[in-house]
Amino acid sequence: MRVHAYAAPAAGQPLAPTTIERRDVGPTDVLIEVEFAGICHSDIHTVNGDWGPQPFPVVPGHEIVGVVAEVGTDVTTHRVGDRVGVGCMVDSCGHCTNCRNGDEQYCLNGMVGTYASTDRDGTTTQGGYSTHVVVDAGFVLRVPEGIEPAAAAPLLCAGITTYSPLRRWGAGPGKRVAVVGLGGLGHMAVKLAHAMGAEVTVLSQSLKKQEDGLRLGADAYFATSDPDTFTALAGRFDLVVNTVSAPIDVDAYLSLLAVDGALVNVGAPAEPLSLNVMSLIGGRRSYAGSMIGGIAETQEMLDFCAEHSLGAEVEVIAAQQVNEAYERVLASDVRYRFVIDAATLR
Amino acid sequence: MRVHAYAAPAAGQPLAPTTIERRDVGPTDVLIEVEFAGICHSDIHTVNGDWGPQPFPVVPGHEIVGVVAEVGTDVTTHRVGDRVGVGCMVDSCGHCTNCRNGDEQYCLNGMVGTYASTDRDGTTTQGGYSTHVVVDAGFVLRVPEGIEPAAAAPLLCAGITTYSPLRRWGAGPGKRVAVVGLGGLGHMAVKLAHAMGAEVTVLSQSLKKQEDGLRLGADAYFATSDPDTFTALAGRFDLVVNTVSAPIDVDAYLSLLAVDGALVNVGAPAEPLSLNVMSLIGGRRSYAGSMIGGIAETQEMLDFCAEHSLGAEVEVIAAQQVNEAYERVLASDVRYRFVIDAATLR
Repeated sequence: MRVHAYAAPAAGQPLAPTTIERRDVGPTDVLIEVEFAGICHSDIHTVNGDWGPQPFPVVPGHEIVGVVAEVGTDVTTHRVGDRVGVGCMVDSCGHCTNCRNGDEQYCLNGMVGTYASTDRDGTTTQGGYSTHVVVDAGFVLRVPEGIEPAAAAPLLCAGITTYSPLRRWGAGPGKRVAVVGLGGLGHMAVKLAHAMGAEVTVLSQSLKKQEDGLRLGADAYFATSDPDTFTALAGRFDLVVNTVSAPIDVDAYLSLLAVDGALVNVGAPAEPLSLNVMSLIGGRRSYAGSMIGGIAETQEMLDFCAEHSLGAEVEVIAAQQVNEAYERVLASDVRYRFVIDAATLR
Repeated sequence: MRVHAYAAPAAGQPLAPTTIERRDVGPTDVLIEVEFAGICHSDIHTVNGDWGPQPFPVVPGHEIVGVVAEVGTDVTTHRVGDRVGVGCMVDSCGHCTNCRNGDEQYCLNGMVGTYASTDRDGTTTQGGYSTHVVVDAGFVLRVPEGIEPAAAAPLLCAGITTYSPLRRWGAGPGKRVAVVGLGGLGHMAVKLAHAMGAEVTVLSQSLKKQEDGLRLGADAYFATSDPDTFTALAGRFDLVVNTVSAPIDVDAYLSLLAVDGALVNVGAPAEPLSLNVMSLIGGRRSYAGSMIGGIAETQEMLDFCAEHSLGAEVEVIAAQQVNEAYERVLASDVRYRFVIDAATLR
């Protein structure tokens, strides 16, 4: 079927309306009528060519929420009319150790990204800035009642990207968690860590968003541009989740950790970072990284968000505003996620 | 009391016989007649001034085994005639969070090192290359029957330094552990990880010590000078313990880790190291550090070694050979630890 979409025709070019082909609904497929698609910073990196050559035209979008319009003959997990979501992956091998452990994002044979990836049939995947997507049922999540669909879309990337390390590194009552950066990922990290019962501190470059941070659930807010911050908070945190992709002074952030603490990056700067090993040894500290989460864990996150009435803070836009929205994301002028209303694509 | 010892008179000077003063046995003190003192690479770094200015003369030695000669009036944990050990610490504040958690090595008020540290009475601590030491009972370990005293001495530093990260990062049946470097620390890591039931691989610069490695308990042995090693072992290990203090290619070693794997440094190169954050994110991997272990954990390690009839591989020397032994340690010409027979100090 031929569907409406917004695509980048080439690296660095503005996105423009187009139509793309979606495959026929196979036995294990789900056809989803898209309601909302979040704009992730990765979308911009990809279409700008920051991450190398891409198979243009590229339809970005991996924070997708919609309603099931059709299911394949073998699909038992989803029904027509269900509200569902799709995140950063649409397939994986299913049989490697990591897939079997529910870590499809680390599939040893390479997971299939939601856009600009080679699908199992050899075609290039196209993302959620589109009226419809066809996705294998195993990669379609249930969006529970209790989360607004527009606010649910960013959970599929920003939500799981922060939920997974918070859970894995034990955010909860009695734990002190710092979130570096209060953007799309950071604001979800604050909401989630707070809902998990942790004491949450935002470490942001300035105090500009302090009021927001506290409203979203932070217990404290510090400016990293103030060197006193690093003295005042030395050895304080069990977990520091760094949502900023720009290079950081790793040793300075490691110094904020208590014994056994972990600094976890969920974004990767392009340049290598330098660190003094003594920063790790001096407190049995870890520097770690985490990439989205597995499918079962993503479902767990959505259920957790519904239970805690949690969604992203979003600004809903029409597809026609996407290029302007990209500019504003690059200028950090969004509180806290743009979400495209897919009705404007038709 | 005045006791015989071997001391470095100044940075980089050969060690020479001398006498030093030991404090009177206080109510909580234990006087130990030293039997054996291991030679740790740290001793050499310290007396060579590699780690900054030191309070010379310095009597090194923090791998001490001996027999209790006298106990203070309040000491109930040790008796005259008991075989005991002293490691890298002889005191800590006892009341900070880390001390209360049994992590005296990370005492927030600064643990007191066994030598070249300022003791609680303001004097400078002097280590185990000496006929006697006086140590607070809380920092004196029981050396169980079943470990030869000379082979037990290196356990107090090399043993606990490797035991602690192996335990903390879950070395055991079904786990694949790599040990980087087969020196004083590395050979203990191999023995301990093998005794814990893990599959053990040695990663050494060359295959020179392969036979030894396999005899000590390794299941496999690879040369890191062969680039094929990194291809062959990609994604294989749950834990890589790096016992080498020289700088390493962190990204290359991280690539050997499976999802959730950890690379743990127990030595610290002087220079900062560089890493690509993607190496962490691409498999939820950690780069961590670990420094010796707490007192209770050190006792646990000694008990574990006794249970498994484990000790270090040692070459017992007379105190008069210490300078020559230092040269051989620097040339990696020791299998695998020099231990001074303290009887030769008298």
